[in-house]
Amino acid sequence: MDVQHYMHTLGRQARAASRLVAAASTDAKNAALAAMAAEIRARRAELLAANARDLEEARAAGLEPALIDRLTLSEKGVEAMAAGLEQVAALPDPVGEITDVKRRPSGIQVGKMRVPLGVIGIIYEARPNVTADAAALCLKSGNAAILRGGKEALHSNQAIAACVRTGLTAAGLPEHAVQVVDTTDRAAVGELIAMPEFVDVIVPRGGKGLIERISKDARVPVIKHLDGNCHVYIDDEADPAKVVPIVENAKTQRYGTCNTAESLLVARTVADLYLPAIGRMLAGKGVEMRCCAESLALLREAGVAAENLCEAAESDWREEYLAPIIAVKVVDGLDEAIAHINTYSSGHTEAIVSENYTSAMRFLREVDSASVMVNASTRFADGFEYGLGAEIGISTDKIHARGPVGLEGLTSQKWIVFGNGEVRR
Amino acid sequence: MDVQHYMHTLGRQARAASRLVAAASTDAKNAALAAMAAEIRARRAELLAANARDLEEARAAGLEPALIDRLTLSEKGVEAMAAGLEQVAALPDPVGEITDVKRRPSGIQVGKMRVPLGVIGIIYEARPNVTADAAALCLKSGNAAILRGGKEALHSNQAIAACVRTGLTAAGLPEHAVQVVDTTDRAAVGELIAMPEFVDVIVPRGGKGLIERISKDARVPVIKHLDGNCHVYIDDEADPAKVVPIVENAKTQRYGTCNTAESLLVARTVADLYLPAIGRMLAGKGVEMRCCAESLALLREAGVAAENLCEAAESDWREEYLAPIIAVKVVDGLDEAIAHINTYSSGHTEAIVSENYTSAMRFLREVDSASVMVNASTRFADGFEYGLGAEIGISTDKIHARGPVGLEGLTSQKWIVFGNGEVRR
Repeated sequence: MDVQHYMHTLGRQARAASRLVAAASTDAKNAALAAMAAEIRARRAELLAANARDLEEARAAGLEPALIDRLTLSEKGVEAMAAGLEQVAALPDPVGEITDVKRRPSGIQVGKMRVPLGVIGIIYEARPNVTADAAALCLKSGNAAILRGGKEALHSNQAIAACVRTGLTAAGLPEHAVQVVDTTDRAAVGELIAMPEFVDVIVPRGGKGLIERISKDARVPVIKHLDGNCHVYIDDEADPAKVVPIVENAKTQRYGTCNTAESLLVARTVADLYLPAIGRMLAGKGVEMRCCAESLALLREAGVAAENLCEAAESDWREEYLAPIIAVKVVDGLDEAIAHINTYSSGHTEAIVSENYTSAMRFLREVDSASVMVNASTRFADGFEYGLGAEIGISTDKIHARGPVGLEGLTSQKWIVFGNGEVRR
Repeated sequence: MDVQHYMHTLGRQARAASRLVAAASTDAKNAALAAMAAEIRARRAELLAANARDLEEARAAGLEPALIDRLTLSEKGVEAMAAGLEQVAALPDPVGEITDVKRRPSGIQVGKMRVPLGVIGIIYEARPNVTADAAALCLKSGNAAILRGGKEALHSNQAIAACVRTGLTAAGLPEHAVQVVDTTDRAAVGELIAMPEFVDVIVPRGGKGLIERISKDARVPVIKHLDGNCHVYIDDEADPAKVVPIVENAKTQRYGTCNTAESLLVARTVADLYLPAIGRMLAGKGVEMRCCAESLALLREAGVAAENLCEAAESDWREEYLAPIIAVKVVDGLDEAIAHINTYSSGHTEAIVSENYTSAMRFLREVDSASVMVNASTRFADGFEYGLGAEIGISTDKIHARGPVGLEGLTSQKWIVFGNGEVRR
């Protein structure tokens, strides 16, 4: 098979389907999502069998346990997929919403209408449930989708794709509205990201390596999520009751998520007040602290176990550990905290703990990250916690969508003009 | 001089300045714009002398008259530049605007804050006034700018840049907030579009060739404006009083602008009713009509001069003539009109002339262009007509900003969270 020809065929079909999906009624889209959910439940045994086949091949190929874990689809996982489709059906439809209409001196009324982006290419790794999630979000936002999952999940993804197609046709929508690439040839990815005539935006979901590679080679816009080096800054006027709980939650609730805090900054005037308690709490959970000279001295003095302490290198300020490790630094105050974050952060999520109004507002305004918080844990940076209902990913880009990307992030706004025969003078 | 080193220096300086400009008060930004305007007026003779030097070199190099025309700065042009800076100062400041704050079940309040993009690279051609315009729009939207004008305008641009710098420092803003590249080495453009660590977005302003080249090679997002193949569709239920005036204005008010209509579609049921009058009006203005077989027959029958008529080729449906030429096609009705536009249009601006509510609303929703209009001339697709105050360009992209891009298009929204010590469960 000629991969370029195959991908162009998918692209042409997606483009044609995207016109119909963009114009589809909310009812039709919701009916398709409900039918997909029903089909997934009805074909549970088939899905599990396809997944077993993938797992068998993965084990035979000696894939690492973490990957096998992400690849595994349980009975509960199948039900969660079906329920996820129904949740997306329950979300408000963003397409066609008219806002900001204003009458102009010429007599025309100008406003904006929310519209789908067109065709979205999603490139992901081992998790098969992404196939259903991404299909649902793209469809509900009026877009056609071309999905390219990991080669290890091929059989699972094809089985899920069959359920998606059945749902689409049951609701009278074009089956090409969601297409799953069914070749494992790596060249398919290269084609997918280089056909602007058929694909409007690429959303890669996976490790930093995958995303960097795709961003570098893509000839269409990419909504990317690089790393999450999130900071918590304890200000001079922090509320003592909020300091330890927020640091504890931001760092230790889960170690492997992108909204976990990886760096702690403490204002010098309160460093001796808060660092001992923070240090004991973190050491008690087995967290390693990589410290600036000043915080290291304070933590040692406070009796924090030496095994949990070490000196930070410059590279620690940039690190996304995804592990029980945190970088710790004493700063002069708000100005140095903001400068440090804007220098070293990956632009994902940062939090200040402060009771001072001006410090809080300056931190919100001047910290250049996708999510900026006052007196809350960085762990809240998440599509569900923000009320988006679901998310396709978290963007660390600066144009289009920043932070958690839900249905609205898969749309844009065009201008509309209501006239009454006006001409320009 | 090592161009890469030079451009990286500009980039590093712009990045540092962007932090200060992003946090600058509205008053400081407006004071800088007012000081720039005053400086431009005060140095009028100097600006005209610098421009005269550019013009002399351009003539000696045998540049074509149209280019010389764009390069020329008159006394009136200098005053228009100064007035343009004051107009931007008078526009509302988009930076820091907080919207959509909602309380979530966790207790946090989540909203959005409008923020600058960071550093904007603008690449343009001969017109020196773009230097002042672009500086003003970037500054007011809280961004730092690196401006790269055409080599033929080097002396004019440097003279304007000196006024801009004086204005910035007079208002206590960093002089690196706006930097004008002062080498004519083409490699500077290659560097500017390939340093994502320093530049967040590129806005090319110029011909299609320039924009395509930049989009192809850029390693940062590009807000691009390709061609404007705009359509007017005369629906079955058009108001007879609106048909000819809208076609006349859309096609003939100015021939060289991107929002000029280049294609006319007429519903079959009303083709014999309207085409004769339209044809006579266009022929009277010397417009050449490139017609489908059906419209050609109708227009001939109506006695439109043969010299104004010819048969259209397939390529005419895609053409941006920027000249007294229009493609004409009879279509079945709304469905074919929408399908034709979505196939052949460049996605800039389209208008329907119709009194039918459902046809108008379907056209608005289903036509996939940046501006879609009912009963108004396509010539209204313009930042000033839309009330943006000024525009940096007109985007034909689908993500981020579509259509006229004003101050808001040079910003994005980050998420903000107001907490009270909440942690995630």
